[in-house]
Amino acid sequence: MNLLAIDLGGSHATCALLRDGAVRSSVRLDAAGFTGLRPLLPALRRTLEEIVATSGLALRDLQGIGFAFPGLVDSERHCVLSTNEKFRDAPSVDLRAWASEQLGVTLRLENDARAALLGERHAGAARGSDDVVMMTLGTGIGGSAMIGGALLRGRHHQAGVLGGHLPVRLAGRRCTCGNLGCAEAEASTWALPLQCADWPGFSESALADLAGPLNYAAVFAAAESGDRVATEVRDRSLAVWAAAAVGLVHAYDPDTLVLGGGVMGSAPAVLPYIERYVGRHAWTPWGRVRVRASELGDNAALVGLSILFQ
Amino acid sequence: MNLLAIDLGGSHATCALLRDGAVRSSVRLDAAGFTGLRPLLPALRRTLEEIVATSGLALRDLQGIGFAFPGLVDSERHCVLSTNEKFRDAPSVDLRAWASEQLGVTLRLENDARAALLGERHAGAARGSDDVVMMTLGTGIGGSAMIGGALLRGRHHQAGVLGGHLPVRLAGRRCTCGNLGCAEAEASTWALPLQCADWPGFSESALADLAGPLNYAAVFAAAESGDRVATEVRDRSLAVWAAAAVGLVHAYDPDTLVLGGGVMGSAPAVLPYIERYVGRHAWTPWGRVRVRASELGDNAALVGLSILFQ
Repeated sequence: MNLLAIDLGGSHATCALLRDGAVRSSVRLDAAGFTGLRPLLPALRRTLEEIVATSGLALRDLQGIGFAFPGLVDSERHCVLSTNEKFRDAPSVDLRAWASEQLGVTLRLENDARAALLGERHAGAARGSDDVVMMTLGTGIGGSAMIGGALLRGRHHQAGVLGGHLPVRLAGRRCTCGNLGCAEAEASTWALPLQCADWPGFSESALADLAGPLNYAAVFAAAESGDRVATEVRDRSLAVWAAAAVGLVHAYDPDTLVLGGGVMGSAPAVLPYIERYVGRHAWTPWGRVRVRASELGDNAALVGLSILFQ
Repeated sequence: MNLLAIDLGGSHATCALLRDGAVRSSVRLDAAGFTGLRPLLPALRRTLEEIVATSGLALRDLQGIGFAFPGLVDSERHCVLSTNEKFRDAPSVDLRAWASEQLGVTLRLENDARAALLGERHAGAARGSDDVVMMTLGTGIGGSAMIGGALLRGRHHQAGVLGGHLPVRLAGRRCTCGNLGCAEAEASTWALPLQCADWPGFSESALADLAGPLNYAAVFAAAESGDRVATEVRDRSLAVWAAAAVGLVHAYDPDTLVLGGGVMGSAPAVLPYIERYVGRHAWTPWGRVRVRASELGDNAALVGLSILFQ
């Protein structure tokens, strides 16, 4: 089965061709300059058409297109319900009509962290488990939960996917979702510049003079070099993620917690801390939660989208 | 249908006779002096036998006994899995055998907050809703969640019921569950003396010279009288409960949030604050969560237990 897939993130969009559930080819677009989804659609279409042509296929060879979106989606009606920062026009975009008219294929939409969980469970770090929580650390913090083999969806399609919006700090930073002290507002790539700007002594830190962007890879590298502020910001962020991880374990009762997202490019700086904290502080009298790094990485949501067509 | 029911709390146990899902008579026992469940069983049996006799019934007229327990329970095998403070011997007590041998009836066990949710949904504040979160503010903080008409249970029977153990304060107070900064450890009746002892200026507060026990009724009363420490402790506790409420809404996507437990004896001091905070800060693009005080109060779990026999 040949499928198209799009994984839209806060700063990039990955377009892919899947065959029998595996990524056959993919192209990563920079989406940082786009504030809306509608302006991005022509570039997505061109990229998909090129991928199909390069693969020696035609659009009529495709069984559909899966779309992973970083926000609240109705995966029955295949529309975006709400988004807290980027792509604010998405709820008004008819993605099904776009896919049908522009590409001639049926579109299925899912939240990006739910799609990533499906991928990891099908072919990655959560193989063999029916009770999984996925936590993606990146531009924001995504979440998703599977209980007894079924994705948790909830009354308004938002159960499980607000894992980054469980508050972990009383009277904390205002989040783009409207809440205070969300894990995402306390430690994510979008919050990092705010976090650093507030940090005592930041102007003397190596982080204040970076040639490249201020992201967690830079923070972990500067902390390794002994930079005080970077070390403190790193430790604070780890504490936020670890507290959030225990919150998700307590909320959804999984046996497996998968950590993904761009920040996990620095997995050795993140995974052991969260694993140890969850082992020490989660109330799991039945045993220990398996804490695993994503195995599929950037491909997790793409692979997961293929499950929607099974 | 005649049923017996026991609702065990941190400081008391209520024994009741139910007829057709309504509480016909009940007796509240002081359980504060009991650290174990086993030593409490003879008093529970005597009380139940008296209730039955006083009602003109015999044990053979009863269809069963429901038991609501404040901890993790396996409601398929009807045994206690874990408890974080009181009744530490409960996992080793065979309650089914006790009920069968001592009372000649079949026992069904449920977590107390799950039972309370069932009661409120059947005959109380959550009537008509299939998507409910219950939060009980008392000795500890209980939680339970219903999604699409089904109680959330999870892989190890603990999904939904750790609502009081979502962390809301980074590096906060150590909870009896082993986690740090749980809502329950930051604001519940058991944590209140610890919270007050740490509060600057507590020794000058009216709360330091109470004739009765230090509980939230006393805090609310002293705050009403203008006591500074009581006002600050009250406001901090409200902030904890409100943050936890948003966390539960984000985790489980309900349309109705029911607040119960002993602290809701002071509902006018609690409900409006939480309702306003949830309205302002929960990310619910579909509309507004109904925030309601328990209608069944102390009877919620008792009434809910009758649902287990339907």
